[in-house]
Amino acid sequence: MHSKRLYHGAAYYPELWDEQTIEQDIRLMKEAGIHVARIGEFAWIQMEPEEGKIDLRFFVDIINKLHDNGIETVMCTPTPTPPIWLTHGHPERMYVDEQGTVMGHGSRQHICTNNAYFRERAAILTDRLAQAVGALPGVIGWQLDNEFKAHVAECMCASCLSLWHSWLEARYGDIDKLNEAWGTQIWSEYYHRFDQVPQPGPAPFLHNSSLKTMYQLFSMEKIAEFADEQAAIIRRHSDAPITHNSSIAFHVDNERLFRGLDFASFDTYASSDNVPAYLVNCDLWRNFKRDRPFWIMETSTSFSASLESYAKPHPSGYLKAEAVAAYALGAEAFCYWLWRQQRTGCEQPHGSVISAWGKPTVGFAAVLEVERARQEIEAPLLATRAAQAEVAITYSDRAKAFLKTEPHRKLNHRGLMTSFYERILHMGIHRDVIPEGAELNGYKVLFTPFMHYVSDDYRKRAEAFVERGGIWIVGPLTGGRTEQHTIPTDAALGRALEQLAGVETLFTYPMDGTGAIGRAFGLSAPLSLWSAVFEPKEATAIGVLEGGLSAGKAFITECKRGGGKIVMLGSLPAGEDGDRLLQRLIGHYADEARVALRTDVTRGTIVAPRQGDGYTLWVIVNMDGTGGSVTLPQEGLDVLSHGPVAPGPLHLGPYEHRIIRIDEN
Amino acid sequence: MHSKRLYHGAAYYPELWDEQTIEQDIRLMKEAGIHVARIGEFAWIQMEPEEGKIDLRFFVDIINKLHDNGIETVMCTPTPTPPIWLTHGHPERMYVDEQGTVMGHGSRQHICTNNAYFRERAAILTDRLAQAVGALPGVIGWQLDNEFKAHVAECMCASCLSLWHSWLEARYGDIDKLNEAWGTQIWSEYYHRFDQVPQPGPAPFLHNSSLKTMYQLFSMEKIAEFADEQAAIIRRHSDAPITHNSSIAFHVDNERLFRGLDFASFDTYASSDNVPAYLVNCDLWRNFKRDRPFWIMETSTSFSASLESYAKPHPSGYLKAEAVAAYALGAEAFCYWLWRQQRTGCEQPHGSVISAWGKPTVGFAAVLEVERARQEIEAPLLATRAAQAEVAITYSDRAKAFLKTEPHRKLNHRGLMTSFYERILHMGIHRDVIPEGAELNGYKVLFTPFMHYVSDDYRKRAEAFVERGGIWIVGPLTGGRTEQHTIPTDAALGRALEQLAGVETLFTYPMDGTGAIGRAFGLSAPLSLWSAVFEPKEATAIGVLEGGLSAGKAFITECKRGGGKIVMLGSLPAGEDGDRLLQRLIGHYADEARVALRTDVTRGTIVAPRQGDGYTLWVIVNMDGTGGSVTLPQEGLDVLSHGPVAPGPLHLGPYEHRIIRIDEN
Amino acid sequence: MHSKRLYHGAAYYPELWDEQTIEQDIRLMKEAGIHVARIGEFAWIQMEPEEGKIDLRFFVDIINKLHDNGIETVMCTPTPTPPIWLTHGHPERMYVDEQGTVMGHGSRQHICTNNAYFRERAAILTDRLAQAVGALPGVIGWQLDNEFKAHVAECMCASCLSLWHSWLEARYGDIDKLNEAWGTQIWSEYYHRFDQVPQPGPAPFLHNSSLKTMYQLFSMEKIAEFADEQAAIIRRHSDAPITHNSSIAFHVDNERLFRGLDFASFDTYASSDNVPAYLVNCDLWRNFKRDRPFWIMETSTSFSASLESYAKPHPSGYLKAEAVAAYALGAEAFCYWLWRQQRTGCEQPHGSVISAWGKPTVGFAAVLEVERARQEIEAPLLATRAAQAEVAITYSDRAKAFLKTEPHRKLNHRGLMTSFYERILHMGIHRDVIPEGAELNGYKVLFTPFMHYVSDDYRKRAEAFVERGGIWIVGPLTGGRTEQHTIPTDAALGRALEQLAGVETLFTYPMDGTGAIGRAFGLSAPLSLWSAVFEPKEATAIGVLEGGLSAGKAFITECKRGGGKIVMLGSLPAGEDGDRLLQRLIGHYADEARVALRTDVTRGTIVAPRQGDGYTLWVIVNMDGTGGSVTLPQEGLDVLSHGPVAPGPLHLGPYEHRIIRIDEN
Repeated sequence: MHSKRLYHGAAYYPELWDEQTIEQDIRLMKEAGIHVARIGEFAWIQMEPEEGKIDLRFFVDIINKLHDNGIETVMCTPTPTPPIWLTHGHPERMYVDEQGTVMGHGSRQHICTNNAYFRERAAILTDRLAQAVGALPGVIGWQLDNEFKAHVAECMCASCLSLWHSWLEARYGDIDKLNEAWGTQIWSEYYHRFDQVPQPGPAPFLHNSSLKTMYQLFSMEKIAEFADEQAAIIRRHSDAPITHNSSIAFHVDNERLFRGLDFASFDTYASSDNVPAYLVNCDLWRNFKRDRPFWIMETSTSFSASLESYAKPHPSGYLKAEAVAAYALGAEAFCYWLWRQQRTGCEQPHGSVISAWGKPTVGFAAVLEVERARQEIEAPLLATRAAQAEVAITYSDRAKAFLKTEPHRKLNHRGLMTSFYERILHMGIHRDVIPEGAELNGYKVLFTPFMHYVSDDYRKRAEAFVERGGIWIVGPLTGGRTEQHTIPTDAALGRALEQLAGVETLFTYPMDGTGAIGRAFGLSAPLSLWSAVFEPKEATAIGVLEGGLSAGKAFITECKRGGGKIVMLGSLPAGEDGDRLLQRLIGHYADEARVALRTDVTRGTIVAPRQGDGYTLWVIVNMDGTGGSVTLPQEGLDVLSHGPVAPGPLHLGPYEHRIIRIDEN
Repeated sequence: MHSKRLYHGAAYYPELWDEQTIEQDIRLMKEAGIHVARIGEFAWIQMEPEEGKIDLRFFVDIINKLHDNGIETVMCTPTPTPPIWLTHGHPERMYVDEQGTVMGHGSRQHICTNNAYFRERAAILTDRLAQAVGALPGVIGWQLDNEFKAHVAECMCASCLSLWHSWLEARYGDIDKLNEAWGTQIWSEYYHRFDQVPQPGPAPFLHNSSLKTMYQLFSMEKIAEFADEQAAIIRRHSDAPITHNSSIAFHVDNERLFRGLDFASFDTYASSDNVPAYLVNCDLWRNFKRDRPFWIMETSTSFSASLESYAKPHPSGYLKAEAVAAYALGAEAFCYWLWRQQRTGCEQPHGSVISAWGKPTVGFAAVLEVERARQEIEAPLLATRAAQAEVAITYSDRAKAFLKTEPHRKLNHRGLMTSFYERILHMGIHRDVIPEGAELNGYKVLFTPFMHYVSDDYRKRAEAFVERGGIWIVGPLTGGRTEQHTIPTDAALGRALEQLAGVETLFTYPMDGTGAIGRAFGLSAPLSLWSAVFEPKEATAIGVLEGGLSAGKAFITECKRGGGKIVMLGSLPAGEDGDRLLQRLIGHYADEARVALRTDVTRGTIVAPRQGDGYTLWVIVNMDGTGGSVTLPQEGLDVLSHGPVAPGPLHLGPYEHRIIRIDEN
Repeated sequence: MHSKRLYHGAAYYPELWDEQTIEQDIRLMKEAGIHVARIGEFAWIQMEPEEGKIDLRFFVDIINKLHDNGIETVMCTPTPTPPIWLTHGHPERMYVDEQGTVMGHGSRQHICTNNAYFRERAAILTDRLAQAVGALPGVIGWQLDNEFKAHVAECMCASCLSLWHSWLEARYGDIDKLNEAWGTQIWSEYYHRFDQVPQPGPAPFLHNSSLKTMYQLFSMEKIAEFADEQAAIIRRHSDAPITHNSSIAFHVDNERLFRGLDFASFDTYASSDNVPAYLVNCDLWRNFKRDRPFWIMETSTSFSASLESYAKPHPSGYLKAEAVAAYALGAEAFCYWLWRQQRTGCEQPHGSVISAWGKPTVGFAAVLEVERARQEIEAPLLATRAAQAEVAITYSDRAKAFLKTEPHRKLNHRGLMTSFYERILHMGIHRDVIPEGAELNGYKVLFTPFMHYVSDDYRKRAEAFVERGGIWIVGPLTGGRTEQHTIPTDAALGRALEQLAGVETLFTYPMDGTGAIGRAFGLSAPLSLWSAVFEPKEATAIGVLEGGLSAGKAFITECKRGGGKIVMLGSLPAGEDGDRLLQRLIGHYADEARVALRTDVTRGTIVAPRQGDGYTLWVIVNMDGTGGSVTLPQEGLDVLSHGPVAPGPLHLGPYEHRIIRIDEN
């Protein structure tokens, strides 16, 4: 589904301000070019000040007033902040952390979303809310709750314990199937009944890996079920599409979560010093709901902050570059948190559009700049769509859960993935970051790094992709764990994968500090992380170990299958030499696969290709504030200045963006 | 009130030793020149071995025996260490920390001072104690308890919860006044009744700033009320003045605490490497009770230590320099913790005068040196008094509470204040550190740094000070929060302050890493911390931003008001360049205000001016062990050697002190 | 008792694998030269799947099958992992940590070993187990439980509280004896009854040192009593000797523990970068049971790992060097943890002999190398025994407990001891590390470092050793605390020790950063740690302080007593200069005592002397992988190659070992 417009929005809390301030806000929104407001996500107490006394007129009025002023609304359910009448005197309803600490009232996410009475009250309110505002002309979308599992992870309350037992029973049927699957004979962990399976709380040493991973999957499933339940209620009364503002930083399975929702959105507060951490979201969120553009639901106009910390403000020009990049990479909306600085609470210092005293903030000028750019690029962008990449990297929150259970040496899934992604980005290759279950059609190269458990389904789809001519690059840290987070007993990485890859994995062990040097593609680098050493069977050794404990054996192999190839990458080359080697590998297989969506754009600048009817748009954006260049392969048309652009090097100034139309030959 | 003598004392625990040891102690005290002993602060069990069986004869005898030997007593109430009969089986009486952990018996401060039964028993014992010893000739003073809130902060027990609700009700009257003041509509925090307001315990994310700050103010008020209550009981039976040994490191409001007491005292264990951390206490404590000299109630003869840590011993000569500096800056007493090394407990390794085996410790020689100096300087010091400074810096424990709620990036109020103070110290300017409520008469320059909330009362007094000709320098980090720890809605720093300062604050944001350079007084430096950017209205820009996000705007302004001036310092210049810029600013306004109590003394040496009848004494002390010098403006008289001293440079050796009399012209 | 063979073993978990895998395991064990299997330590659930339903046939069969294949068994009691029927619904049986957190089921050591019902069930099962397998021909030994107190320390549960009270009553008899001994008059800690003495749980500040230390001694005594109780049960049915796999890293008193057992064993996972941490175990464990060789019960074939961390794999050759060194230093067995990589649990990544999929791991080749070496050296080693050293260093877990109570500045007993040991090792001196209660006969030099409390018994035995001609070197950090962890009141280090040493300790204080330089034996070095400064009385000053607070006083003294000498070492010389000074001191007294078991072996290589009938064997092993050399004093015989070896330098390659026979003259 194509976008009809590019939205520019902000989170808004009219319930916290008086009428006069609201009037001022609406006036200023129009001035700033904000035409969508997200409202209501913390407003339970305003909607239902006492249990059962629901009054939604304020919100109906606000939505209508905004609409009358050309401002659309994304309406939120207010479930992240249950009011005091729901929490006071009810510790059994509250979130309980890993140490067994019971949360009190007064922050957010303090109640357990699996508590039955919470769910009952949430359902009633959401139903009433959807009824009241769901059909209003101003409501163009819904957001469920706010940042699920941002401040909390797996709850350890008694409600969760009981649901956990049911979940396990539904999954395993028979307790001895669970015992066998998890290998609970070890350390006499064995359970006689499902109701004996503990939550992974305090223990003298580590819990069983299966218990830890399954409890995470349970928790991620339950929060998605809550979303499904809420969405179903809304749909009874409203046709507006439903989303949730998520992130790869939260303890959710985004793929599963968005399956039940209508469009995908995310919140990001990445620093201007870490552009890849921003862009990886765009390249991933575009792929959660391929038929609908994604939203950036929250980002800061300048800096994020709370009572306890603050980030560095964006340099001038950066916010505009972020917005143009996002729209070019498939975003339909670019929204701020927040419109007006909080007067109270714990996030008063957070950057905003307007200050608590009603004046422009340090970010305001940047917002105007975004709006000017948005207007300029809206038409060409709406006439095209973000091109599908030829190179895909699989991202999985379930893989993240496995790594949380088994972090090796404090490995961080998000950091590993972003760093891997960054190398491809810096090589000027257009890329998709895709969920585990995504279709693989249309790709030429598929990377599957840091995925301890490769499901049969995934492997089979990847195999089909290879058969069709794709190159599948497996690793590092991929394979070697079963669905239950145990070790395969047929082969180190599982027989199916090894057979497909035409290798036998001889050993797996940590290579850091062993002196192991990997040599491949004419380069050498020290190897790191838990690694697999291969004996090629049908495969060919591409990368060979020198030094260390397995000299002469392979750490990179490739094996032809059908029209394509499966490449095993058994270790992570480290340091600057490792970077070079990895980039050489990426470049090698991109070339071999004839990846075309690639430019020589300089590091710090991006090219977002968009597909039009008979032409491609290159949206080129300098993101690092130092300017950059890219070689234009043929004459193009500057869509913004309407002039021709000669082939050859095209230079951009700091944070500058250009849109070049290149007609198909 | 002038001192009648300079005391030299030590904390003494006769209840822990046998008669023979006590005899030895008294003999050695006389040898060491110790003529005041502080006793009893942990001795509840000796005074009341079983509930209600109070027997104070031991202490009466000790006080008399000490007195017979020329040793005066400061008597303590023993409330920091409630005995087992008060604690055993009563978890509900114990201190509960922020995580909800209930303390056990056996350390100190383990009971909640707000527990009603504790208060009842404390009142009974204190009454009996005051009756028994209050009129003894040896008792020259009282100390309440010991180091209130040194090891604990805000208690989270049920007694406190209930008092908290009453305190709130008394403060706000109506729950909706609280809701409005705190803005609890945010995140549906809203309370229907006072008894729903939680303590700021475990939560998934941060609590409301108002809740956090008010709970600190509540806690500080309650501990002061306990002091008031105890003091009132003592006064029924004793005329001896009452103090408490406090510190800016503890969780108390010292200004409020000392309001109800008769004289101020503090404990300090600053390292010899951090002289400003020692001196800032002297310059502050002198101003808590201006009509009475302060006491250094505890300091180490050489080093502090416990089972878990130890400090570096003082170099030879340092203790004497500390003592002379303290007496010169207004101390009436210089006392050690402790006389005889502990045999048991958890502070056995702590430095003392005499070892547990009755021999001189490594600090003993230093104690003799102190006593020699004390005798030498006593007469000239008693004939004079510490001169009031012309430059004042406001210190506020309430500001510390605001910063604890909102630490930005782990900012530490004590560290910030000491570092700010240090710059003025190093410039040879005599200075007062004054409590928030102090009179401003007599000052020429007033600094108000790091005070998030500027009360109307404070602002009005500062305004009057300016009208009278003073220069008020506001910032950094000052203003911008209301009494309720919310954001002003009329102007960034509050309209009243901005109008007074003749500025409009355009933006407030963190400047670290933004490239903002401040230029003022011919110097440039990078700017740091949360900052305010000004548009001068009636004011003049004195410091201008270069680079960063607000180039061309002001970060220092000045505005004439009446005979004086208000200077806004919107940001903290950082690094060595920042130090230079700040010192330039301080020097500039000190010159402009014609600050006269300033010398060219070299860094590491201090001049403490004292006012006599028609003359000034300069007490000059080298504190850093490297010697120093200062220029004498006219001929003086060396009060210790009784010889004349020529004008011009005067040199001091390591840790040397000199007292020079300069007659008024 | 001489060994009859050198064992090569591995921990084995047949209960976790199917019959076919077990067959494969046995085949592979024979291939790998593994002829002893340790089994059963976590297998409670397999032995007693439901409460009271004990079935041990599986283990009987396994033991017999192993035996039939030439593989002996060390049988374990499975008490570290109580099954769910013992834990579920019984929080009162679980281990409670220092913060009061109650452990859940599912890791190990999660139950309190002092819980009466646990003890009852453990006794029943152990009795049945001993009955069932105790007389089987394959069972050559027993291991109780597994790594007592490795993951837990002192339990704070209600059972322990009650036992603690009884233990105290038994120890002190009268509560006022405890009050006096601990000095509980301090801080009103005083107890009226034993049942009021708390466990050292949460408190605002530190607990009384006596309480902390005694609770550790109590805990160490209780776990040893559990071991004694279990051992007594086994002995009813089995003659096989009993051990426990312990470590100096655990919270046990190894000397006390092994007193009740038949032979000593340890687990070690020291990195190849820290060879002294490996060797110190061999030199200590040899001395726990002098009449029986010790076992290395667990070590990794290559690297240790868990879900949360991993160590660096051993370089090629290192495992063999470890094994040869261990056998040479008195080990009877060298065993791996573990045979087959875990499929499930939390230690799947841990190095093993065979992978979970039944293939050799990266450590397998090293195991074969060990076996080849073992066969080669078995005969010469069995014909000799590890020579008693002339130099002894006392190691005490009770001293460790004192240091845990009073860590000064985060001092770590194990680190301090290993570093002290390392200096003697590197000087080529053969050494014994001996428990506190060990016989001192046969030694020439005795070191007693880091022992806060020197018992009368120890001092008297050391005095007798000195009278007989020995040199006793006392310190650093030795003396200065009583049995109750209080300060002596007769002299700094206790009068008895000072009189013996002919010194008066003037001061004790921390020397770090004071500028104190120690000069002795012609060298100078800065001094560190809590130090004692001596006035020699009968003694002579050997090391003198320069600079600092006690210039001219002594920090090393010596005093002749009988045929020997007592040397006080009051401080720890620091840095590289300190190392040189300490080594000079060690060398000086080794020379003076005519220590003969010393070579000029290069650092990184060791010589383990073994005594044969009329000859000495030198087992020389390079441990650091860089090769080394040692001078042979006379012609020797290479026992492995059977050729003569000329006197003079003998060179070894990386990880090479040689066994040279040197006949007595």
